[in-house]
Amino acid sequence: MKLVEWLAKSVTDDPRALRWFSEEGSDERIARAFKELLAGYEIEPGTLLKTTRMLEPGERPGRVEVREIAFHSICAHHFLPFFGEVDLCYEPGDRILGLGKLPRLVDAYARRFQIQEDLVRDVASEMMDSGHARGVRVRSRARHLCMCSRGPANTSAVTDTEFALGTLAED
Amino acid sequence: MKLVEWLAKSVTDDPRALRWFSEEGSDERIARAFKELLAGYEIEPGTLLKTTRMLEPGERPGRVEVREIAFHSICAHHFLPFFGEVDLCYEPGDRILGLGKLPRLVDAYARRFQIQEDLVRDVASEMMDSGHARGVRVRSRARHLCMCSRGPANTSAVTDTEFALGTLAED
Amino acid sequence: MKLVEWLAKSVTDDPRALRWFSEEGSDERIARAFKELLAGYEIEPGTLLKTTRMLEPGERPGRVEVREIAFHSICAHHFLPFFGEVDLCYEPGDRILGLGKLPRLVDAYARRFQIQEDLVRDVASEMMDSGHARGVRVRSRARHLCMCSRGPANTSAVTDTEFALGTLAED
Amino acid sequence: MKLVEWLAKSVTDDPRALRWFSEEGSDERIARAFKELLAGYEIEPGTLLKTTRMLEPGERPGRVEVREIAFHSICAHHFLPFFGEVDLCYEPGDRILGLGKLPRLVDAYARRFQIQEDLVRDVASEMMDSGHARGVRVRSRARHLCMCSRGPANTSAVTDTEFALGTLAED
Amino acid sequence: MKLVEWLAKSVTDDPRALRWFSEEGSDERIARAFKELLAGYEIEPGTLLKTTRMLEPGERPGRVEVREIAFHSICAHHFLPFFGEVDLCYEPGDRILGLGKLPRLVDAYARRFQIQEDLVRDVASEMMDSGHARGVRVRSRARHLCMCSRGPANTSAVTDTEFALGTLAED
Amino acid sequence: MKLVEWLAKSVTDDPRALRWFSEEGSDERIARAFKELLAGYEIEPGTLLKTTRMLEPGERPGRVEVREIAFHSICAHHFLPFFGEVDLCYEPGDRILGLGKLPRLVDAYARRFQIQEDLVRDVASEMMDSGHARGVRVRSRARHLCMCSRGPANTSAVTDTEFALGTLAED
Amino acid sequence: MKLVEWLAKSVTDDPRALRWFSEEGSDERIARAFKELLAGYEIEPGTLLKTTRMLEPGERPGRVEVREIAFHSICAHHFLPFFGEVDLCYEPGDRILGLGKLPRLVDAYARRFQIQEDLVRDVASEMMDSGHARGVRVRSRARHLCMCSRGPANTSAVTDTEFALGTLAED
Amino acid sequence: MKLVEWLAKSVTDDPRALRWFSEEGSDERIARAFKELLAGYEIEPGTLLKTTRMLEPGERPGRVEVREIAFHSICAHHFLPFFGEVDLCYEPGDRILGLGKLPRLVDAYARRFQIQEDLVRDVASEMMDSGHARGVRVRSRARHLCMCSRGPANTSAVTDTEFALGTLAED
Amino acid sequence: MKLVEWLAKSVTDDPRALRWFSEEGSDERIARAFKELLAGYEIEPGTLLKTTRMLEPGERPGRVEVREIAFHSICAHHFLPFFGEVDLCYEPGDRILGLGKLPRLVDAYARRFQIQEDLVRDVASEMMDSGHARGVRVRSRARHLCMCSRGPANTSAVTDTEFALGTLAED
Amino acid sequence: MKLVEWLAKSVTDDPRALRWFSEEGSDERIARAFKELLAGYEIEPGTLLKTTRMLEPGERPGRVEVREIAFHSICAHHFLPFFGEVDLCYEPGDRILGLGKLPRLVDAYARRFQIQEDLVRDVASEMMDSGHARGVRVRSRARHLCMCSRGPANTSAVTDTEFALGTLAED
Repeated sequence: MKLVEWLAKSVTDDPRALRWFSEEGSDERIARAFKELLAGYEIEPGTLLKTTRMLEPGERPGRVEVREIAFHSICAHHFLPFFGEVDLCYEPGDRILGLGKLPRLVDAYARRFQIQEDLVRDVASEMMDSGHARGVRVRSRARHLCMCSRGPANTSAVTDTEFALGTLAED
Repeated sequence: MKLVEWLAKSVTDDPRALRWFSEEGSDERIARAFKELLAGYEIEPGTLLKTTRMLEPGERPGRVEVREIAFHSICAHHFLPFFGEVDLCYEPGDRILGLGKLPRLVDAYARRFQIQEDLVRDVASEMMDSGHARGVRVRSRARHLCMCSRGPANTSAVTDTEFALGTLAED
Repeated sequence: MKLVEWLAKSVTDDPRALRWFSEEGSDERIARAFKELLAGYEIEPGTLLKTTRMLEPGERPGRVEVREIAFHSICAHHFLPFFGEVDLCYEPGDRILGLGKLPRLVDAYARRFQIQEDLVRDVASEMMDSGHARGVRVRSRARHLCMCSRGPANTSAVTDTEFALGTLAED
Repeated sequence: MKLVEWLAKSVTDDPRALRWFSEEGSDERIARAFKELLAGYEIEPGTLLKTTRMLEPGERPGRVEVREIAFHSICAHHFLPFFGEVDLCYEPGDRILGLGKLPRLVDAYARRFQIQEDLVRDVASEMMDSGHARGVRVRSRARHLCMCSRGPANTSAVTDTEFALGTLAED
Repeated sequence: MKLVEWLAKSVTDDPRALRWFSEEGSDERIARAFKELLAGYEIEPGTLLKTTRMLEPGERPGRVEVREIAFHSICAHHFLPFFGEVDLCYEPGDRILGLGKLPRLVDAYARRFQIQEDLVRDVASEMMDSGHARGVRVRSRARHLCMCSRGPANTSAVTDTEFALGTLAED
Repeated sequence: MKLVEWLAKSVTDDPRALRWFSEEGSDERIARAFKELLAGYEIEPGTLLKTTRMLEPGERPGRVEVREIAFHSICAHHFLPFFGEVDLCYEPGDRILGLGKLPRLVDAYARRFQIQEDLVRDVASEMMDSGHARGVRVRSRARHLCMCSRGPANTSAVTDTEFALGTLAED
Repeated sequence: MKLVEWLAKSVTDDPRALRWFSEEGSDERIARAFKELLAGYEIEPGTLLKTTRMLEPGERPGRVEVREIAFHSICAHHFLPFFGEVDLCYEPGDRILGLGKLPRLVDAYARRFQIQEDLVRDVASEMMDSGHARGVRVRSRARHLCMCSRGPANTSAVTDTEFALGTLAED
Repeated sequence: MKLVEWLAKSVTDDPRALRWFSEEGSDERIARAFKELLAGYEIEPGTLLKTTRMLEPGERPGRVEVREIAFHSICAHHFLPFFGEVDLCYEPGDRILGLGKLPRLVDAYARRFQIQEDLVRDVASEMMDSGHARGVRVRSRARHLCMCSRGPANTSAVTDTEFALGTLAED
Repeated sequence: MKLVEWLAKSVTDDPRALRWFSEEGSDERIARAFKELLAGYEIEPGTLLKTTRMLEPGERPGRVEVREIAFHSICAHHFLPFFGEVDLCYEPGDRILGLGKLPRLVDAYARRFQIQEDLVRDVASEMMDSGHARGVRVRSRARHLCMCSRGPANTSAVTDTEFALGTLAED
Repeated sequence: MKLVEWLAKSVTDDPRALRWFSEEGSDERIARAFKELLAGYEIEPGTLLKTTRMLEPGERPGRVEVREIAFHSICAHHFLPFFGEVDLCYEPGDRILGLGKLPRLVDAYARRFQIQEDLVRDVASEMMDSGHARGVRVRSRARHLCMCSRGPANTSAVTDTEFALGTLAED
């Protein structure tokens, strides 16, 4: 079964559309692209975070934020991408986490079918659970192709979601 | 009865103005443009919003904002457009709403004769009523052609209106 | 005869739309607004330009540009405004023109039913004719409400027109 | 046959991915979104352009540009959107074209499976053929989701294409 | 008595300065310019504001701001202009005011000999008195030619004044 | 004879306007401000420029530009200021000129009754004459209060003038 | 005794450096430049501020700020300039102060050997003392040449200082 | 032992890579570059800060901030640089510190193997200890090459860290 | 043999520096990071480019540019990264190339020891050879850590290189 | 002999100015700062440039530019700093030069008493002589404290100089 069959049956049977899919290897190439966009299911987020160092007893840590982490995700309702940036701020609990793993955590939850409201909640929860944070605040901003390509009110719209837990939920 | 008759009688009888309207189909084309600008009356806003998913018992939702939603409306006092952008922020009550419907809600209230003060109130109320939000804050900024095309003090002026209900009215 | 009659017959008979026009003086107020937007027909552009001083024999003049002249006009095809800015550059012929009259010249041609392509041509021609310029270049950029309020491809579109005569047509 | 069958067979069988598609009406909703993105096949571009007015004999027209026309298209190689803006500049041949139709022409060619190199060529050719232009230059800039969501070198990349015909090809 | 007499006696008797005033109609033209800049004395601000609609009993109104209202005024100490922008924010009391009248209110107080500290107070008081507002906040920013044209410390300086009354004085 | 006499007779006899001038020393303070704005008549521009060093025989000099030189001037037609910036570029003839004198040269010609077209010509000519330049190009951009404080088309307008001589007139 | 003697003895005896000072009048020209930079010692700041008008009994004044006042000062530790901008905000006590005098007050304290921490304190104290303010807040931002011309960490550094008294110290 | 030996054994034995290191003096040049990047170990931070002047008894000092101090550091985990800017704000305790020493303090801690979380803590502690501050807040923002050169989520990411002590920890 | 041995012998033996490398797996982690940065040696650039479609006989292609392609490379002289962006513009010869492969081509040449002058030449040559382009122009801009972390003149410096071949070398 | 003696005799004998210099080591600290600013005399520019690699016979090199090189210099006429940025562009002759040496070359000529016109000429000539370039273009932009701290026309002024040789002089 190939994507072009669905396309022809459910979307359009215009031959100018369908001829693109007659090329050898076309269906496989599309599948590879979507496998990359959905690669987050292969990752176990709970094992991603690494410890840079444990805090010493009584050590008061400062605040850490990794900003402007690019992400790409797919909206399952329309099978179309949404994409944008996440800002991830946390207050360490008993350890300082490896900075380079924070974008990977975002990536692991973004490369799935998602809704933007759950993306920030999933990342925040993981930071508390396997990251042992005292507090976390995750903000995202994104454009949704299912929204932008439609009526004129939607073209320019940007969506923000935010989720905070622990000490950073009290700000 | 045609628009040119009103124009000739009430505004100007300069033949250079009136000759534009002698073309076949001119009145119909103008009517079509205004029908589009007033299409909001055809929409029942209370049926627009869709539920993406219900919250689970005890689930604490984050905050969601769709920003920079373009709108075009008509000021009935001068029969001239005003247009700009709406930022719509809400805290979910018992459900997360479909993002793509929020610009449509704005559009449904904007494509009417409106005043900018009521536009933000109408959208905010609908979010509480049929959207079951815990709180909502709607901000708009717009330029009014009835204002901009007149005296020099007005040319650059931008108008902001804001309306908040529920938890977001307490900020 | 009143505008609301045309509106009710040709555009919408929704009572929420029509009630705005039941107020005393409503039709007159709208007519006044459109009289202002069409006031250019009252002005004879050929008499607007004033001479600051004549050039002396053999004097080589420099180049003069008045930029970012705001204008508001009406597209007769849809009875909706378009508006933006004009940049008007000229090389004096036998005289230097009063700077303050150049925006008025633009205004005189803009406050009519216009198409943006003719606006720049009309202003440029007048600068050559009654302004005795050696060369002139008129550029405009504008947004058209008949365009912006429709499909998503149009919302962001900006239109530029340009017309040059004399020495400045050779650049 | 449904999209989820292709997804399960060719991309991922993770139940967290597939459960999104078990909802009633899911496949139809996705098909509707793609029908909109591919609606250009329903339009005959050669009939879109309208004449605002014919030039008078010997009339020298200026240059006209509609800039920042938003478009959304689909790359057939990866079944993923690309989107951006088109700038369309032309020199009238024997007529001035209706401005509002130029974004629709772009839309008609963009809402298909396209490659960005052909989009500018198709629009330019149509301007010469049914628009009777003396010259035309079409520029586009876009981001491709098939490119941006992959390796780090690609995330920020923007693609420009340009095509010119007639007098504007000689610049 | 003419302005040039004062100029010659009190400022400079350089013939290169005085010859500008020998032209017929020079004094009248200057007087007309100053009449426009001082036209605010002809206006009764208490009659300017119009009611768009009365609030319904128990109706909670939102906040309204007209921003970036351009103004030009004259500093009486040096007979030189100052100019800039006013932002006017109010909370309606028992009525929503016509937006287009707010810039006219600013204009009525600016086109007088003023000091920038009193301009914001005058506008704010009028909004409470004849506008029946619950609260008002008026901010201005301006450049003063009497200041900018002097020592180097002053050239770049911008002056802000602010005045608030009622509920908006409590922020 | 005092300025207030002219004001009362020719502009306005509103007592709220005139009372500002009853203060002791008011006329003198205004005269001092205008003396400063007209101080250029006291300066002999031909003596301002200084030589940093003479070029050596056969030395090829580069290009020098002092940009963004602020100036304030008075338009004699309306007795109102205009102000902005000058960019002064020159190619040395037989000498390199002291940089600090170039803004003073602009100042000497600006602090007079001027028209913006002559300001750039006067500065350019002086650079050729007493500065022995091989070429010079002077550009100015300014806002005119006599223009900005009037109809809406004028508020935003900026005026540019340019004058070039010698090798820089050939660019 | 001349500056070049100190230079030769304490800094460098490179003849390429010293030859610049052999020119007639060199030492006097440098002394004049430094006299201007240190001219603040000639001014008695306590006499600078002027009263525009006294407040009426019970009159509640608004807030006034003169922003972006340019200043140049000298750091005595390295005999090198520092320069930047001051923002001066005050709440009137019993009088409104002449706006034009506020930049002069900054200038009087800046044109001395200063440290940036004391500059804001000196200006703030004077506003309370001879300006009879209820509150004052002075902010400065500057670049120090003694800092910028050294190691790479310093090149980009900007220094801010702030000092508040009275009601504005409580914010 | 030379760096190229480690490179060949542990990273790549591609001759196109290794040939760069065959040049005479190559290893020494690399060592010199790293010595500079690690020069902070040679500095005793506790001796860096200098006193500009002691506060007088009862003197209330304002707030001082040196912003945008550039730094370069090395992440020991990947032997790759990270770099960015530090903003260092303090409230003097009993003395005002020499401004020029604050960037040097940052430099002394940055030119080591560091983690960005400790850099702000180290600088803040030193300001309290040897700088006798009442309060200090240190913010940094940086890009990490170990992060940016990897997966697409990381390319654009910026990391912020913040640490505050004393009175500024209470904000 | 481990990197820490070289470090201790050639750069610094400060125990605070060396202790970072005592952790298990430290040397392997650094090697992995450098393997990624040098992964370009594993790629055969001549096989990367793909054909989207062949041009038809006589077909005139437009111009294509992929801009702002991020790259990271290593300067072999100092074993330190340089990084920035490449703009790659080409005119097709007999085929249109797959857009997504152009960033990969840049990546293949950047992830090596490189000098920025050769990077643009290598990419341009490959576009002519295996891409069969009629012309190509490659521009890069980058920051070099070996340069930025040293004396103050270097901190802000940005390096541009450019290389053009075929029809685009004639511009 | 000390700097304070010159200051007291030639500039000001105000004790508030002179007391700064009574501190032990004050004269030495100032001398050290000026030694750094004049350190260019210690450097032989002809030995600075290094060869990255020789071009191969027939190799066509591209164009190389190092932009935004910060510099600080002293104007000998007023003993006051001027500072800004240099852009240095060259076309290689027989060799590619080490990028890191180009900012050092600028530094070597800037850290002297200079005039900005000669700075660009000196750097350009050295690039041709010891750098064996085919062409070079050097541009600088700077602010002069001797200019900025004086009359209002000068405060904002920026000075550009440019010098080109060889193939880049022909552009």
